[in-house]
Amino acid sequence: MCQLLGMNCNTPTDIVFSFEGFRKRGGLTDHHVDGFGIGFFEQKGIRLFHDDKPSANSPVADLVRAYQIKSENVIAHIRKATSGRTSLANTHPFVREMWGSYWMFAHNGHLQNFTPARGRYYRPVGNTDSERAFCHILEELRNRSDERPCDDTLFRTLSRLVREIRSHGLFNFILSDGQVMFAHASTLLHYIVRQAPFGEARLLDDDIAVDFSAVTTPNDRVAVIATLPLTENETWQQFACDELVMFRDGAIVRRECPDPPRYLSTEEGLALARAVGASA
Amino acid sequence: MCQLLGMNCNTPTDIVFSFEGFRKRGGLTDHHVDGFGIGFFEQKGIRLFHDDKPSANSPVADLVRAYQIKSENVIAHIRKATSGRTSLANTHPFVREMWGSYWMFAHNGHLQNFTPARGRYYRPVGNTDSERAFCHILEELRNRSDERPCDDTLFRTLSRLVREIRSHGLFNFILSDGQVMFAHASTLLHYIVRQAPFGEARLLDDDIAVDFSAVTTPNDRVAVIATLPLTENETWQQFACDELVMFRDGAIVRRECPDPPRYLSTEEGLALARAVGASA
Repeated sequence: MCQLLGMNCNTPTDIVFSFEGFRKRGGLTDHHVDGFGIGFFEQKGIRLFHDDKPSANSPVADLVRAYQIKSENVIAHIRKATSGRTSLANTHPFVREMWGSYWMFAHNGHLQNFTPARGRYYRPVGNTDSERAFCHILEELRNRSDERPCDDTLFRTLSRLVREIRSHGLFNFILSDGQVMFAHASTLLHYIVRQAPFGEARLLDDDIAVDFSAVTTPNDRVAVIATLPLTENETWQQFACDELVMFRDGAIVRRECPDPPRYLSTEEGLALARAVGASA
Repeated sequence: MCQLLGMNCNTPTDIVFSFEGFRKRGGLTDHHVDGFGIGFFEQKGIRLFHDDKPSANSPVADLVRAYQIKSENVIAHIRKATSGRTSLANTHPFVREMWGSYWMFAHNGHLQNFTPARGRYYRPVGNTDSERAFCHILEELRNRSDERPCDDTLFRTLSRLVREIRSHGLFNFILSDGQVMFAHASTLLHYIVRQAPFGEARLLDDDIAVDFSAVTTPNDRVAVIATLPLTENETWQQFACDELVMFRDGAIVRRECPDPPRYLSTEEGLALARAVGASA
């Protein structure tokens, strides 16, 4: 299974610390060696880095570290291909423009028999189920409105679309338009909201620690989303299966969750991914 | 005025040699210091690098050199802002998806009173005349057809659109869908087609030479397009004012040129750009 990383903040923040742990899973501490991608929003613009080399030793990933890009919304994805070939056109995150803003999307999981009708506004370029799902979501949102609706309408419409799509299989994803960030879990997805008082965090995948109190202001709020927790001394929250969450300014502003919620252990989540041949 | 660079080939080729000369104009041998962008097609996928640092000493440009990406279609742009602020959303090349392929566009010049109606399929994210022109071109092409038309129809439709747009000012641009590359000159644009027998070329902006016969096969054909010639010992061809050309596999396959053709000297071209405050 691939892994997802997302960050949504109320102030431009560099993702280097989280990304350093995350990228190690691409070839060093884990086996996601079939390339990676990371996309940053900078105001309305985006910066996108894709590489077909494992993230652990990719020069593109080295540049991301060296550059310390500050962003309020970041989405990253490392890939373990279980079927289909690695190609740039199939590398997450995917980007399209809608309502005069860029939208960015990354997925892990696997959708079976998911063949939405060809879109009028959005068509896939590659041949993954992930890009098909992304284009289908945008197509349906765009069909319903010529302008970006309010967060509430957006969340409700997306929720209905996601319910339909996840009936085809595993659909863990992160989606952002540079203002808000949506995260949805079918199996494994975790998050943490860091805010004052900030403390020290130590990476699980590398011998690196950071004292956030030294690099933040008391008003900063940063939500980090990851398939599996990235740090060993913080309490990460797990998304329930089929939970959809919307973040804005580093905080959860909408959420929809089955009642009662159901949580998978890491072993159950990974086994489920293997069983369906999740390849996103 | 900004500068454009394009490459269209019949085999994946690295653009490092041309880009090394070109990037020097971003802060060293010329004054285009307000950022740069370069986009590569790799099969159907794209790789895009933007930086707001001068290209001459940008770590992103260093990565482009180190990576030696091989591509059949490349578009690059270095920027000298004369008005408006530098922002990522305004950095060329711009990208959109149309007919299931990515389209990439970079412009230099300046369009006055160019305010096309808001598009149904394509809207600008930033606020440049360049992105407006790109979205307008795609909108009009997409409105006319649900599928990519043949090269001939595409060229004729684009030619009509360009005639309308260039009535608003200076419109030097390069456009590609990864299969063909269009180039249009209002003022200064040059090209060279390199094919067997290959010889040695020396950069104008750097003390670098390359012997293409050592790095090519006899079947290779590479067209390079640049605002001003990049090498000192080769014969570059100049586009006439208002000439539109379509390249495929490193060769010109369509062209439309006023009769008689009119050519500007470098001094005339630069003076004209200054006079209209070209800022693309």
